[in-house]
Amino acid sequence: MIKAGIVGYGYWGPNLARNFNSNPNFDLVAIADRDEKRRLMAAQHFPHVKVSAAAEEITRSPEIDVVAVATPVSSHFALAMQALENGKHVWIEKPITASSAEAAQIAEKAGQLNRVVMVDHTYLFTGSVRKMKEYVGGGQLGDLYYYDSVRVNLGLFQHDVNVIWDLATHDLSIMNYLLGPTARAVSALGPRHFNELEDVGYLTFFYDNNLIAHFHVNWLSPVKIRKTLVGGSRKMLVWNDLEQEETLKIYDKGVDIKTQKGVYDLLAEYRMGDMISPNIPHVEALKMEVDYFAECIKNSQNPHNDARAGFEVVRLLEASDRSLESNGAQIRLD
Amino acid sequence: MIKAGIVGYGYWGPNLARNFNSNPNFDLVAIADRDEKRRLMAAQHFPHVKVSAAAEEITRSPEIDVVAVATPVSSHFALAMQALENGKHVWIEKPITASSAEAAQIAEKAGQLNRVVMVDHTYLFTGSVRKMKEYVGGGQLGDLYYYDSVRVNLGLFQHDVNVIWDLATHDLSIMNYLLGPTARAVSALGPRHFNELEDVGYLTFFYDNNLIAHFHVNWLSPVKIRKTLVGGSRKMLVWNDLEQEETLKIYDKGVDIKTQKGVYDLLAEYRMGDMISPNIPHVEALKMEVDYFAECIKNSQNPHNDARAGFEVVRLLEASDRSLESNGAQIRLD
Amino acid sequence: MIKAGIVGYGYWGPNLARNFNSNPNFDLVAIADRDEKRRLMAAQHFPHVKVSAAAEEITRSPEIDVVAVATPVSSHFALAMQALENGKHVWIEKPITASSAEAAQIAEKAGQLNRVVMVDHTYLFTGSVRKMKEYVGGGQLGDLYYYDSVRVNLGLFQHDVNVIWDLATHDLSIMNYLLGPTARAVSALGPRHFNELEDVGYLTFFYDNNLIAHFHVNWLSPVKIRKTLVGGSRKMLVWNDLEQEETLKIYDKGVDIKTQKGVYDLLAEYRMGDMISPNIPHVEALKMEVDYFAECIKNSQNPHNDARAGFEVVRLLEASDRSLESNGAQIRLD
Amino acid sequence: MIKAGIVGYGYWGPNLARNFNSNPNFDLVAIADRDEKRRLMAAQHFPHVKVSAAAEEITRSPEIDVVAVATPVSSHFALAMQALENGKHVWIEKPITASSAEAAQIAEKAGQLNRVVMVDHTYLFTGSVRKMKEYVGGGQLGDLYYYDSVRVNLGLFQHDVNVIWDLATHDLSIMNYLLGPTARAVSALGPRHFNELEDVGYLTFFYDNNLIAHFHVNWLSPVKIRKTLVGGSRKMLVWNDLEQEETLKIYDKGVDIKTQKGVYDLLAEYRMGDMISPNIPHVEALKMEVDYFAECIKNSQNPHNDARAGFEVVRLLEASDRSLESNGAQIRLD
Repeated sequence: MIKAGIVGYGYWGPNLARNFNSNPNFDLVAIADRDEKRRLMAAQHFPHVKVSAAAEEITRSPEIDVVAVATPVSSHFALAMQALENGKHVWIEKPITASSAEAAQIAEKAGQLNRVVMVDHTYLFTGSVRKMKEYVGGGQLGDLYYYDSVRVNLGLFQHDVNVIWDLATHDLSIMNYLLGPTARAVSALGPRHFNELEDVGYLTFFYDNNLIAHFHVNWLSPVKIRKTLVGGSRKMLVWNDLEQEETLKIYDKGVDIKTQKGVYDLLAEYRMGDMISPNIPHVEALKMEVDYFAECIKNSQNPHNDARAGFEVVRLLEASDRSLESNGAQIRLD
Repeated sequence: MIKAGIVGYGYWGPNLARNFNSNPNFDLVAIADRDEKRRLMAAQHFPHVKVSAAAEEITRSPEIDVVAVATPVSSHFALAMQALENGKHVWIEKPITASSAEAAQIAEKAGQLNRVVMVDHTYLFTGSVRKMKEYVGGGQLGDLYYYDSVRVNLGLFQHDVNVIWDLATHDLSIMNYLLGPTARAVSALGPRHFNELEDVGYLTFFYDNNLIAHFHVNWLSPVKIRKTLVGGSRKMLVWNDLEQEETLKIYDKGVDIKTQKGVYDLLAEYRMGDMISPNIPHVEALKMEVDYFAECIKNSQNPHNDARAGFEVVRLLEASDRSLESNGAQIRLD
Repeated sequence: MIKAGIVGYGYWGPNLARNFNSNPNFDLVAIADRDEKRRLMAAQHFPHVKVSAAAEEITRSPEIDVVAVATPVSSHFALAMQALENGKHVWIEKPITASSAEAAQIAEKAGQLNRVVMVDHTYLFTGSVRKMKEYVGGGQLGDLYYYDSVRVNLGLFQHDVNVIWDLATHDLSIMNYLLGPTARAVSALGPRHFNELEDVGYLTFFYDNNLIAHFHVNWLSPVKIRKTLVGGSRKMLVWNDLEQEETLKIYDKGVDIKTQKGVYDLLAEYRMGDMISPNIPHVEALKMEVDYFAECIKNSQNPHNDARAGFEVVRLLEASDRSLESNGAQIRLD
Repeated sequence: MIKAGIVGYGYWGPNLARNFNSNPNFDLVAIADRDEKRRLMAAQHFPHVKVSAAAEEITRSPEIDVVAVATPVSSHFALAMQALENGKHVWIEKPITASSAEAAQIAEKAGQLNRVVMVDHTYLFTGSVRKMKEYVGGGQLGDLYYYDSVRVNLGLFQHDVNVIWDLATHDLSIMNYLLGPTARAVSALGPRHFNELEDVGYLTFFYDNNLIAHFHVNWLSPVKIRKTLVGGSRKMLVWNDLEQEETLKIYDKGVDIKTQKGVYDLLAEYRMGDMISPNIPHVEALKMEVDYFAECIKNSQNPHNDARAGFEVVRLLEASDRSLESNGAQIRLD
């Protein structure tokens, strides 16, 4: 049994605790949180677990093998480094750090010490994203034209990050997973209506071959929408993450354009075939991810969502911030 | 009875013909189309109407009071001017012309000759947009934060205009109607995958007070989506044009942010009230618009969707094209 | 060209007129309606067509080949017989007549005079029902377990028929088409809230092999629902007639039950496969039906929706009425 | 702290355990299950809780105040009586017992011993049903015309009860809560396709004043539907339990019929007003119910979902079974 401690019992910590506690590979032994109310809640939920205020009691505990960091982003770096230096494997909430420089250091340290660092890009473990990976990775969509994502909600305003760092982090981890971390440039726009943090954001990433990836993230939407469209030359797909069934639909639809003689002599033929919605078993993504974490630790295997993957996402977020500061100017990524 | 002739019996012409024919204010007397197949179809549909190949038989006919121009955009200007110069009132499909200079000339000519020119911005006559106008115009949404629209489809590729001129024209006419033609700048992005015309487009308009309006138009989507979100400080709304019922929903939702001491001492309070979907009678928009056209002609009244309104939309489209050419750089509109 | 006249220009007549007028096989020459307002409307829509008050001017006109009867049900029989006796082919709105005895007479007369009688069971000509016929008829669903349909709306109260005769007629024509007119018994329940006519109805038909078909029809629903489920041993389907796309979905889902030793030693295995939504071209059902009518007339062919098919539906409606009168008691159909 | 033990750790037991464990009023001290795998799972989830095979260790334990019974229905009676006789308060999963006679005995015993018995009719604690109770109970819908519910799914076949006892139990508890336990008669139909238990069921309850309540429950549906319509003379509502937002919609719609002179001189006027979807806070129903259980125990208060309420539901289920056995004949309930 791998002994696990969790630092941070706020919004997401209880989900980690529940999953580490019920996973047969792990033994949840300690939880730390600065806030007394959260500690009381942890003690109520897990009377057999040691609950403390000080993170160090976990990051430095000799009996603990794994530290899960579920605190605000600004403290991720220090906690992760401390845990690594004490020989722990580390699970970190997204985004991995507040800067790519910090992320790079974590990646380097993990490599030196031969420890597993896994960034909790939970969506990569959903059945829908895994199935999309099969389709996109297997070339079944053909050449990709665009990737369009909307993730909006009357969202919880974050105190330390804007809506892009909060919500688009999910999408960028998915984008990198599906398309590869090969975007050439980014343009970001986003107004601020309350304080110095953007609450609505539009991001556009430019890939080779006219592939464009666009994201709308929004804390001020009256309704929740989480919908992604991907258009390819052979097939197209729609992922609606809020559906309970049929979350993923693959369309045998497309356009064949036969440009003759000149630009305006365009002859379009439309392919309107069937739609298929593949069966996707209902498994909690976090459960799958915790299983995978155990597997990586046991086999000394590097996870695909390692510190390097976390770094790649933060790099995109930093470039988006630079674009925001210059009114949407395209920022090169290479 | 106002005698009407229609030039162009392609995609939209039959809808005009049906509406002018069944409207008690109008007498549909002539239809012209260059294509013989379309003429045969017109003759089958309206055996009592004179069908010809030459537009001039309509624009110059002494017995005709009104000319409806439903041809490709590039011919709008010449046909509208010819009709005006022959004393006709003119109905023009959107966009009014291929350039703002032409639109300005039509507006000027209509003023000189005291003729009614109406641009067929059909959406302005839907129950949903009229109801939205009441809400937005009446200040019930409070200060506006953003306007976000998605209009995507496996759309008919146009031969002469890109997806923005084709689809966003609808949205820009609605935006100008609801928010006023006061956008300060535009940024446009859009890849081309088949020929020299963009098939996916993202437009962002910047207004005063951090109001942002964003549009996604797309000819390559496997599914049809026509959804608009508008966020305000008092209320927010969602317009789903594809719903048959409950197309418009008004949410008594919002965020009150109390920034204390510093930027990061943010205290957000969320208002989560009821949603109301106002009853909207089912009336064909085009029927209402044709009624309004008759009313404007009878009362020598200038319609709100006149040549000037058409000009304002084309001005935005031209600026969008300039932004596309310079990789999304913001183009000033004033 | 087949010369057609339409008797009745109320709710549905204009749709018939539009389709006969624009169909290249037919020449719409006459429309009759008792109501002057409807005649004025017909004249406005079709200035080239002769409009009169007297049905006889159509049923007895020597220049007319086809009479379409779109009047209230109680007058169908007399008009259809008159038209047949004058040598016309007849198109009749559903239900064919107010009694099965009348329907049988029409069927007999049509046979004697070798005329085509087509009952306007429009739904049989929708892409969805035609595709369902392929699936059900081809055995792709396996053994059928149940057929369940909901057709509810804040519906127009009819003056002369209850909600079952009004709405379920559609469904019974579809049921007979898909499953065959072989139901063994019917049970019907339905309250009346305003007058002597039922406004909510529940119908259950019993077939061999425990196949059950159930219908909910309702004039008092705040929302419109038109949804049918069909469960079979190999596949199951859902038809949502209100969707604009993906109206038909075929599920590779099912249950395999292995009863061992005794009744309660049940071992259920669930098959959860993909869903496929076949592409269904958008064609107006009424257009296809009018084409088929022309084809049947030209080829002296008996349509599948002939007077006999109309009779079979009325027989079910009559049995339903008897069940209603006896508090839902099962009425044998054979 | 009230000390609680749970008997049965199958499908629903873990939800009870989680809620009793995290509720500040309760101390979860023991779990029993016959199945070793389930006991191992319980021990993994709650290492601090005593896990045993024998229910008696809970029902007879002197340190336990409350016994929650989450075993198959057939064992409810014996376990509940044993717990009551040992002075425990009892929480029982639905349906309370396999017969109304047993339910009556539990109700009597609870009264004699002054113990709280609560039947887990969870739905009564959802925000939607509580809000519906306000509308229906407050007379805002006017006179009720019908109550129509669909609850279908590719459901888990039960070994000991048919689909009506499994699924309709939810609905009947809601019906009794909203309309009162005053139905006059029931008619039930349902085929069996695999063994001796009905897998599809249609239930109709008859109330005074032509109010009808109809239920469709189904284990063989390819899709999950949980939708209820309630029609009244003043307003109508739709409850869609599968929606994450806007689960309840209230329609200001209706029909006013003015019958003049005779039955067929019917003049219908339709009222088509706004729809309102009241904001319903997201709270887990089971959490609210466990809170209410604690409150009833502390205040020696009889819950509305007591053994008597459980009895009333079982009485309806038994009558439904009798109707099934006699081909849907109406069974009187009074």
